Amino acid sequence: MGGHAPLFYEDPLALQSGNGVWLENLNGDRYLDLYNNVPCVGHANARVVAKLSEQAATLNVHSRYLHEGVVNYVERLVGLHHDGIESAILGCSGTEATEMALTLARTVTGSRGIICTDATYHGNSSLVGRLTGLPVGVERNGVKSISTPQMFRPFHDGLSEPELLQKHLDQLEATIGSFADSGGFAGMMLCSILANEGLPNPPGRWFAEATAMVADAGGLVIADEVQAGFARSGSWWGYEVNDFTPDVVCMGKPMGNGFPLSAMAASHEMVTKFRERHRYFNTFASSPLQAAAGSAVIDEIVDRGLVRQVAEVGSRLKAALTELQSQHPQMGDVRGNGLFIGIDWVEPGTNNPDVGGAQRMVESLKSRFVLLGKAGQHGNVLKIRPPLVFEDEHAEIFLEAFRDCLVNA
Amino acid sequence: MGGHAPLFYEDPLALQSGNGVWLENLNGDRYLDLYNNVPCVGHANARVVAKLSEQAATLNVHSRYLHEGVVNYVERLVGLHHDGIESAILGCSGTEATEMALTLARTVTGSRGIICTDATYHGNSSLVGRLTGLPVGVERNGVKSISTPQMFRPFHDGLSEPELLQKHLDQLEATIGSFADSGGFAGMMLCSILANEGLPNPPGRWFAEATAMVADAGGLVIADEVQAGFARSGSWWGYEVNDFTPDVVCMGKPMGNGFPLSAMAASHEMVTKFRERHRYFNTFASSPLQAAAGSAVIDEIVDRGLVRQVAEVGSRLKAALTELQSQHPQMGDVRGNGLFIGIDWVEPGTNNPDVGGAQRMVESLKSRFVLLGKAGQHGNVLKIRPPLVFEDEHAEIFLEAFRDCLVNA
Repeated sequence: MGGHAPLFYEDPLALQSGNGVWLENLNGDRYLDLYNNVPCVGHANARVVAKLSEQAATLNVHSRYLHEGVVNYVERLVGLHHDGIESAILGCSGTEATEMALTLARTVTGSRGIICTDATYHGNSSLVGRLTGLPVGVERNGVKSISTPQMFRPFHDGLSEPELLQKHLDQLEATIGSFADSGGFAGMMLCSILANEGLPNPPGRWFAEATAMVADAGGLVIADEVQAGFARSGSWWGYEVNDFTPDVVCMGKPMGNGFPLSAMAASHEMVTKFRERHRYFNTFASSPLQAAAGSAVIDEIVDRGLVRQVAEVGSRLKAALTELQSQHPQMGDVRGNGLFIGIDWVEPGTNNPDVGGAQRMVESLKSRFVLLGKAGQHGNVLKIRPPLVFEDEHAEIFLEAFRDCLVNA
Repeated sequence: MGGHAPLFYEDPLALQSGNGVWLENLNGDRYLDLYNNVPCVGHANARVVAKLSEQAATLNVHSRYLHEGVVNYVERLVGLHHDGIESAILGCSGTEATEMALTLARTVTGSRGIICTDATYHGNSSLVGRLTGLPVGVERNGVKSISTPQMFRPFHDGLSEPELLQKHLDQLEATIGSFADSGGFAGMMLCSILANEGLPNPPGRWFAEATAMVADAGGLVIADEVQAGFARSGSWWGYEVNDFTPDVVCMGKPMGNGFPLSAMAASHEMVTKFRERHRYFNTFASSPLQAAAGSAVIDEIVDRGLVRQVAEVGSRLKAALTELQSQHPQMGDVRGNGLFIGIDWVEPGTNNPDVGGAQRMVESLKSRFVLLGKAGQHGNVLKIRPPLVFEDEHAEIFLEAFRDCLVNA
């Protein structure tokens, strides 16, 4: 598969099976999975498997024929969003969704300028890749970044929270303004929980105020819900948790519980304008198989009450971690909502990122049969993001291993 | 799903099930499918469905863990190619494969210039979309086109076949040369059977000579096998039919019989260089589910002897169509290999494309329960491209309907 294929762990894990929140390696060792958000309703979820198998045995074709299942699924999907989201185009990867969204924003506004944060990742195509690791002050082909809004490691020292908020908003305003004589301003793309940024808590009501400023300037607000969506933070969508109303949403990862499925959604008018201008056709998208997998995932989330369960289990887990934090100064900050919690690993007594310490925790937890990962601008944030079917009993198992690692790692 | 979603037929077809080469609509009418290349081993193929279901019920994870099935599949896939193809990266759509290939060519050569034909389609991302509908003489961000090589509707009149070949090669040489002082020449991307161009027969050994010229100039030859590959033309790969040796191959559509699966493959050294420079990670790619579907497709092609069957059934079908051509001057040219046959629909006695006539045939055949489509630079080429499991008895059913339409359409 070529050298340099990225693998997790010093000694990579060779897996053979999965079930719910558990993964099993080739030796039959069972690992508690606090990493994988994609199999959101559990590894090898029986309902998803059954629906997928049934549909595959019946029909799978591309979207130039009509299929009831596909139409119903898309209607159901947009119905889970706020009223302004009326229409969706399905794809096979998050990158396809974000690429469509950027192109839609440029088409609808007739302008080119896109804003993102300076520590984000929205995908890997030639267009979307321009948003990856873009320093503030640099323009990359119509894309500029703003400083990631955050309280824990603020981009200016010595400011009160309202002052810090204002500083961020001033920077955004200036960045929007800078597009005035170079192609105009098309919009801002934002992970609605700032996942790759490490789940920072922004000052004040940054999400609401920043997105209002974007709208006032005539730009579109694009919420990347690829990681945030589908109950991850204890609400259906990240933009509900952070209280803003996007014009465009991108969805992916958990949508099909691992079956390749993504979507870009917006108002009917915007999607129609996009389709008028751009030929978008994906052989494998909007297929009956995608609809079967996607519908089964929504069924599971609804019927098992996972939105509420995630909020409650996550809240208790976060409280337990916050309690541990008081005795363990390496845990600089505990952040997040629902079942997406970040622990900012630091040199004790400072807010200096301790990447090595975080990495040792990841390896140490693996040796105790618990899987999680790292994220964030500096790669020092422990990322707790299990399948949504993670329950209190699993949290207990994790916490026992975690406490042990804190003392012995 | 937004206005302007593209659908086939004046009265679109609402499907409910499929089996082998047959599709069934909501009224229970059965249609013979001569259009769909994606379900290559047949609609709802039992072996593919069983393997997919089994794997989905066992494990499906992303590629940052190791999985034997994925490693085995990739080895098997590259083993189907010539010896220079050693390593592959899996994706979820043909566009992802062609985007990787263009980026690889630029990375490996350190140059930017890409050449394609003026009537091609290799995908719809921002980067790959630059190759769509690009007129000769226009540069689009490092991409230039050459005239589609063809005998039936030559780009210069009054030339012998060797003269026409030379004219095409001269144009290619000049186009390569034109990159000398604007970024250098990285390579040529080519559907190895010129499918979207309408399956034209190029003059002489154009494929071999043009690709040799590309190699001599230090460029990479990229074969787009998304439509051509997997036995479609009666050989495993289109480049075998047309006798050239690509440095890079892109695969897609039929790979997973409808499960989203694509790949870019090249030498180990090239793929490693690509990985060193570019972060490419696809949540849904290189998954155990992709490997299960992909392996089952290869098993079916091998065990059922489909490469040979496609060559034989296709050859007899083409002969029957060529015979009809002598009595029906609308059939300007009958081209192609294996089970990919194009009929160039013309105003009788000329080589002027008759798009309306081709469209009437498509609709008329539908009313006789036969599905096929149109392709080509002018949209006037009837495209016969059934699942690979299409047999002589199906060809007879098609030919009866086709003869009827020729007389009564």
